[in-house]
Amino acid sequence: MTINQVTHPTRSDRRHRVVVIGAGFGGLAVARGLRDEAVDVTLIDANNFHTFQPLVYQVATAGLAVDDIAHATRGVFHHQHNVDVLMARVTEIDLERREVHTTAGVSVDYDSLVIAVGAVSHDFGTPGVASNAMDLKTLDDAVALRNHVLERFEAATANPSTIDDGQLNVVICGGGPTGVELAGAFSELFGRVLAKDFPHLDVERCRIVVVEGSDRLLGKFSEQSSARARIALGKRGVEVMTDVKVRSIEPAEVHLSNGSTLRAQTIVWAAGVRGHPLAETLGVPLARDGRIIVDPDLSVPGHPEVFAIGDISVNPRSPLPQLALPAVQGGKHTARQIGRRLAGRATEPFAYRDLGTMATIGRHDAVAEFPNGVRLAGVPGWIAWLGLHVVRLMGFRNRANVLVNWFWNYATYDRASRLLSESAASTASNPTVVRVEVAEGRAA
Amino acid sequence: MTINQVTHPTRSDRRHRVVVIGAGFGGLAVARGLRDEAVDVTLIDANNFHTFQPLVYQVATAGLAVDDIAHATRGVFHHQHNVDVLMARVTEIDLERREVHTTAGVSVDYDSLVIAVGAVSHDFGTPGVASNAMDLKTLDDAVALRNHVLERFEAATANPSTIDDGQLNVVICGGGPTGVELAGAFSELFGRVLAKDFPHLDVERCRIVVVEGSDRLLGKFSEQSSARARIALGKRGVEVMTDVKVRSIEPAEVHLSNGSTLRAQTIVWAAGVRGHPLAETLGVPLARDGRIIVDPDLSVPGHPEVFAIGDISVNPRSPLPQLALPAVQGGKHTARQIGRRLAGRATEPFAYRDLGTMATIGRHDAVAEFPNGVRLAGVPGWIAWLGLHVVRLMGFRNRANVLVNWFWNYATYDRASRLLSESAASTASNPTVVRVEVAEGRAA
Repeated sequence: MTINQVTHPTRSDRRHRVVVIGAGFGGLAVARGLRDEAVDVTLIDANNFHTFQPLVYQVATAGLAVDDIAHATRGVFHHQHNVDVLMARVTEIDLERREVHTTAGVSVDYDSLVIAVGAVSHDFGTPGVASNAMDLKTLDDAVALRNHVLERFEAATANPSTIDDGQLNVVICGGGPTGVELAGAFSELFGRVLAKDFPHLDVERCRIVVVEGSDRLLGKFSEQSSARARIALGKRGVEVMTDVKVRSIEPAEVHLSNGSTLRAQTIVWAAGVRGHPLAETLGVPLARDGRIIVDPDLSVPGHPEVFAIGDISVNPRSPLPQLALPAVQGGKHTARQIGRRLAGRATEPFAYRDLGTMATIGRHDAVAEFPNGVRLAGVPGWIAWLGLHVVRLMGFRNRANVLVNWFWNYATYDRASRLLSESAASTASNPTVVRVEVAEGRAA
Repeated sequence: MTINQVTHPTRSDRRHRVVVIGAGFGGLAVARGLRDEAVDVTLIDANNFHTFQPLVYQVATAGLAVDDIAHATRGVFHHQHNVDVLMARVTEIDLERREVHTTAGVSVDYDSLVIAVGAVSHDFGTPGVASNAMDLKTLDDAVALRNHVLERFEAATANPSTIDDGQLNVVICGGGPTGVELAGAFSELFGRVLAKDFPHLDVERCRIVVVEGSDRLLGKFSEQSSARARIALGKRGVEVMTDVKVRSIEPAEVHLSNGSTLRAQTIVWAAGVRGHPLAETLGVPLARDGRIIVDPDLSVPGHPEVFAIGDISVNPRSPLPQLALPAVQGGKHTARQIGRRLAGRATEPFAYRDLGTMATIGRHDAVAEFPNGVRLAGVPGWIAWLGLHVVRLMGFRNRANVLVNWFWNYATYDRASRLLSESAASTASNPTVVRVEVAEGRAA
């Protein structure tokens, strides 16, 4: 099967066709789970790689290289011949005609569809977020954030007085796992690496501030872990503000609900996510946060041939954490259900098996909570976190490189990925692809 | 010393100031060589990293990641406190006022100056090179070339008929080490990796062509090594044309002196280099290829306080190969001469110690020639090449990662760095910096 044949299918002489949209944790799990089924799978993603999302913040803080946490999607399926990969953005899903429209100049029809396009950052209507704050969802976001911070330091060498104007300050809006992990990693990058890179700058004067609207960090964790995280960040010089909301963001200024203003050239929005806007093209009921409401078997109501998994979907009767693991388990479940439907059997409800949650605060420190009630913190939590993330990174090569990089960072306090190029070392130079990005927003 | 103080020097109460322009092999060697001298060094480069130039072609062919061959310049000098790094482009050198003008909003004055800005690609007036061919000098060039080739493959999946229009063909203009190494690496990338990534494309129909104007490849090597390289490339499916000149390049078309035309969507210009255009601002005699003519001690005639080293300079009485080693040795020599001048002693002529040259043709195959007459080819040449390049890459981390990546590529025929992002994951997002690039051309 080649992609251009997809546009001219002869329905009578072909196998059951599964289209999977999104090559994140959920989409990959579906495609892999279908390896022994008599189906042809087309996996569509706007990038040609899978991103190991839980470590994106490490790229933003120069601890890992882009290639460490990205894996070429086509390479994943070298030995699985029923999967085709299409690098394209999906512009619309036509549930009635069972067609997926893409920017690659082809439409793809399906017998079964799996929507696994994930979440996007959500500003909850806060003024100024889109234009004055940076996101940290994609690998591109991470590279842009890393470069932005490094450039602020380079600019300050020419004019150190700008430090008092917030040149080197970082404000992170949102005290969930992303905000906490990012704040801890920035604190280490500043104190351990950039202070040495820029010995003539008074890096001590940089502020790293986390602003959280609720009364504690890591709201999904226990109060004990929240308190742990706050103390650990404080020891690292991170200022934590709770019960404070972001009212609006102006260039280099964050206005807070307590009437005060934080000055910072680097403002990161990590306060929330919503379903990918592709969901809006479906014409099916969505939750208030834009996620597709699914039945217990993860299918879309009224469309048993369509499944939505991971961060793009929600079963209101049993909402799941928006993490990698529910997406992976949902993907495996969905592959099984597609097999069951092919065999004429009824689908089963999805049962999520909780394996725990973790957030790292920095060198030697993380919080981890397991469903049996075990809670780890400090060094044991950090070792659990490190082991799990290295093991879960796909492929020997990535694992080995990540280990080398982490060992190097650990042993030397260095960060080797702090590279800034004068010109734009774009990872995409195809004008068509770039134009799509500009016109339509973020990656599928 | 901070950079902004540089603009307001008090000449009476400061140490001898050395300005080094360029953080390549030569510039780094000078700065390191001055570690025990009573001087203050300002090292200026448009990027914040050093590029391991001999392996740039490996990034272009997805064998290594960007971070594998780049090293943060500031990190090199964490323990050498008499070196300041300034990330800026040099726009002009004023030899009379002993000032260097930069885009960082500061001018830097010097007592000694070292110009180590290297070479840029040279089209020898061939029409269409600038607009229709790609360079392979910088890391940005390499990323752009890699993405361009991968995008051609992605585009071909939607429309395989374009293969006959040269969609997947590569024409490399120039059969020197860069052209030979690039052709060999592309051949492996196509045959071993992309053929598996794109099982429905007829990758066998891709042509990789090297066009060389003289009568043999690797003109600086022995005829024996040239013949070796030609045979080895031929076995890998690379077409080699010698005694053929490129007349002009149009979009996706290379017109040759023998009247024929090669169709290719990917055209690489590796046919020659010239001195960096910064040399033209000096008002001193230049060689025909734009390099600064230097005295035997590598100083600029009439300016004993100014040295030019590496690819930007030439001593017409003993021209040197444009490789890393002459730059490194020239840098060490220059650091010693600056020390001698400070001590009131006469400078010494530079004596290049030839340690040999190598070019790799691919997996298990390289040619290496040593000044004692020893020539290696095939597996022994490849092992010599591999060992030397890994050892010479700066820093444990880079070495270890490169080893992991190479071992992975070797064992699996995989290439992990073939990542394409939908949007522009620029390594530079500062509009000021990007504007400079657009207005003035390539990196210092």
